[in-house]
Amino acid sequence: MTPIDALREIVGPGNVLLGGDGGSDLSAYEVDWRKRYRGHALAVARPADTAEVAAVVRLCNEHGIAIVAQGGNTGLVGASVPDASGAQLLLNLTRLNKVRAIDAANLTATVEAGCVLQSVQEAAADAGLLFPLSLAAEGSCTIGGNLATNAGGTQVLRFGNARELCLGLEVVTAAGEVWNGLTGLRKDNTGYDLRDLFIGSEGTLGIITAATLKLFPQPVAVTTALAALPTLEAAVELLQLARARLGAALTGFEVMGEYALGLVRKHFAQLAQPLPPAPWTVLLEQSDSEAETHAQALFEALLETALERGLISDAAVASSLEQSNAMWHLRESIPLAQSIEGPNIKHDIALPVSAIPRFVAETDAALLRTFPGVRLVDFGHLGDGNLHYNVQAPAGSDAAAFLLDHEHAINTLVYDALAPFGGSISAEHGIGALKRDELAQRKSPVALALMRSIKSALDPRGLLNPGRVL
Amino acid sequence: MTPIDALREIVGPGNVLLGGDGGSDLSAYEVDWRKRYRGHALAVARPADTAEVAAVVRLCNEHGIAIVAQGGNTGLVGASVPDASGAQLLLNLTRLNKVRAIDAANLTATVEAGCVLQSVQEAAADAGLLFPLSLAAEGSCTIGGNLATNAGGTQVLRFGNARELCLGLEVVTAAGEVWNGLTGLRKDNTGYDLRDLFIGSEGTLGIITAATLKLFPQPVAVTTALAALPTLEAAVELLQLARARLGAALTGFEVMGEYALGLVRKHFAQLAQPLPPAPWTVLLEQSDSEAETHAQALFEALLETALERGLISDAAVASSLEQSNAMWHLRESIPLAQSIEGPNIKHDIALPVSAIPRFVAETDAALLRTFPGVRLVDFGHLGDGNLHYNVQAPAGSDAAAFLLDHEHAINTLVYDALAPFGGSISAEHGIGALKRDELAQRKSPVALALMRSIKSALDPRGLLNPGRVL
Repeated sequence: MTPIDALREIVGPGNVLLGGDGGSDLSAYEVDWRKRYRGHALAVARPADTAEVAAVVRLCNEHGIAIVAQGGNTGLVGASVPDASGAQLLLNLTRLNKVRAIDAANLTATVEAGCVLQSVQEAAADAGLLFPLSLAAEGSCTIGGNLATNAGGTQVLRFGNARELCLGLEVVTAAGEVWNGLTGLRKDNTGYDLRDLFIGSEGTLGIITAATLKLFPQPVAVTTALAALPTLEAAVELLQLARARLGAALTGFEVMGEYALGLVRKHFAQLAQPLPPAPWTVLLEQSDSEAETHAQALFEALLETALERGLISDAAVASSLEQSNAMWHLRESIPLAQSIEGPNIKHDIALPVSAIPRFVAETDAALLRTFPGVRLVDFGHLGDGNLHYNVQAPAGSDAAAFLLDHEHAINTLVYDALAPFGGSISAEHGIGALKRDELAQRKSPVALALMRSIKSALDPRGLLNPGRVL
Repeated sequence: MTPIDALREIVGPGNVLLGGDGGSDLSAYEVDWRKRYRGHALAVARPADTAEVAAVVRLCNEHGIAIVAQGGNTGLVGASVPDASGAQLLLNLTRLNKVRAIDAANLTATVEAGCVLQSVQEAAADAGLLFPLSLAAEGSCTIGGNLATNAGGTQVLRFGNARELCLGLEVVTAAGEVWNGLTGLRKDNTGYDLRDLFIGSEGTLGIITAATLKLFPQPVAVTTALAALPTLEAAVELLQLARARLGAALTGFEVMGEYALGLVRKHFAQLAQPLPPAPWTVLLEQSDSEAETHAQALFEALLETALERGLISDAAVASSLEQSNAMWHLRESIPLAQSIEGPNIKHDIALPVSAIPRFVAETDAALLRTFPGVRLVDFGHLGDGNLHYNVQAPAGSDAAAFLLDHEHAINTLVYDALAPFGGSISAEHGIGALKRDELAQRKSPVALALMRSIKSALDPRGLLNPGRVL
């Protein structure tokens, strides 16, 4: 029996898709979200459950076939599409989409890897609870992909990354065995932390098939405010003040540079901007357990103190859910405004929060010196030390040509500038294929050697997502 | 040169201690805190810094000498003392006790492994900040040991275990190389999660020499309340209500059974108990960012609702720091009261919170049926699903003889009872030597195989804390 026939036996003939002469259009599986990676799969297999995933992995072991696991295929680093060889099996997990259990008294949900993030949020909400992981792709990304990449998003300041939201995993190992590590335990010190090793490993150590996630009580009120600031130093001081005053009720702290918000003003003129342009604008989100009025009063007191201390020049507190949503909409429109403005170079970097003002001042200056006229689109999750530090080609230039000529040099400048601050070249997007070579150059040799020995130990034949991460 | 001479060259002659004829009393290093394990070390080495640790590990590699790392030697599972062979080097890390840096704007502290937990708490407080890890041994345990065992304690409900409080590590690998993974980053998705693999590995995969820890703003007020409850079901409902009402301000939720608090009443009669005896008593702790009066008002509203719903029969809110401390003192006196009452069998177990009432009812009944007259000392961190589910010999019996005869059977009954609920045989104390055989029997074969392959990959010669965990 050919491997393809054996695959059909395992997952059913309708769930093995072949491209080219095989008759299916596989572009949704073979091309990544940013359309930077176009692969060609041996086949796409769509298993229905964990047992089928394990059987497929065992089959691939027999035949030495490499496996690329895929969820919603919304990743930004080329980790979830096959290479061009036509020899890799694309294992799409979106049919594993059951919410297996919600335990309200334990504040946990056990869900399968292919559940769309938004459906997990909705299942939690249906139980009167909150699953706080939230990011732009939530309508199509899957929780398995979120865990495989340790996704971040807008609530990390309070709730942590995907890693911190996960209590247990079910994983199919490289040998095709099932590790049932699903647990609703908050404390469990029985051996090595296998869970966190699989989380963030981008499908290179095992295939996550299900997870037990932390849920939280829903806040009584979520409200936002905008503040205009003269400097990034002031933004860092405001963050400290807000954390002290609001404690864990501070659930979001986003920063937007003047040019970034200006692009929104330019391309989405219909969106009202409550504050006049300022060097920096911060969006604060507060989740309150008491009442909307309580949250607003805390915000007003906080912003008054900030005004007195000269940290902010202006502020607006949302007085309705609609106004809160409109504030978030401004922040969320930056990436699209940027795309409309033209091709650009994205950096997903992290620094100690305390180092951000100096990093930005120095690196902005170096970029402008080396590449005169570039436009700097600085925004991101300041509360987490995570900037989307993007570079737009000079106005009026041929942006595509500029990127072709300078992308590598700009990346090098930015990543070199991170090093003295102990910064990260990938805060929340992962490594995948895109940053594999950068990682090999920039990560410490000791760390790389440890990673390679773990990879060899857990995937000795190197069949899981080869060429990604390492 | 003999290994001992080489060791003296590395750490200085005064920092190599030899027992027996060598002249030093090594009992503080060779005997564990509970005095259940009495080993005999080849020597005790006390390096001053990371470079010396690495040099010692390289020396041990050359000579095939096994290494037992030790911090404050307060562990409860026999993981930090040598075996009886006289062949293992005891590597005591308490001279690595510098606070290397505090970055207030980034809310991080970088400290060496040998820092005593309380000194880390104090260093944070000196900077006006909070390091929330807190446990009974904090005056002598070290942060390196806390991380090596993923310590829990009383603040896990809000802040997580030691793992969640750590952003980065410095580790000496089994080969004697230094991995500098110290980072103050909240987000960093550049490869496998080495940090969490070393955390909780009890010195079997590498030797933690320093860590970058998360700090938090200090709360404006910390206050506590006691509530008397008719059932454990009511305690679980009260927990849900408190989490919804107080959000992340709920920093402690401890439960105490009637017999456990009764032992405190018996042996520490001088400690006032604000509430009359009840089947269950809960201690709630709230950390407020606003004001003491705000915290008390929230407590009072919460407890009034709980009273109306019949969840509690009585309650007392602390009106001063002194009263708060007195409430905590009751809870913290249970282990000592238990010791005074006589030898007993301790279980450090975890369950989904929702499963605790049924587990306790069924397991209490099974224990009383099988071992008539045993006294059940149930207390613990209910908010984390973590019970110290202890068993005292029948009143009037020869407790030592009872334990000798029945300890294993009682452990087996309790651990068997955990299995259907997905419970853990070690919530926060770890495995060490004490529970190694239980783990080998009870952990899934797939998980054990993954753990063994990781151990072989990172410590191929098996020199790091052999015979512990695996």
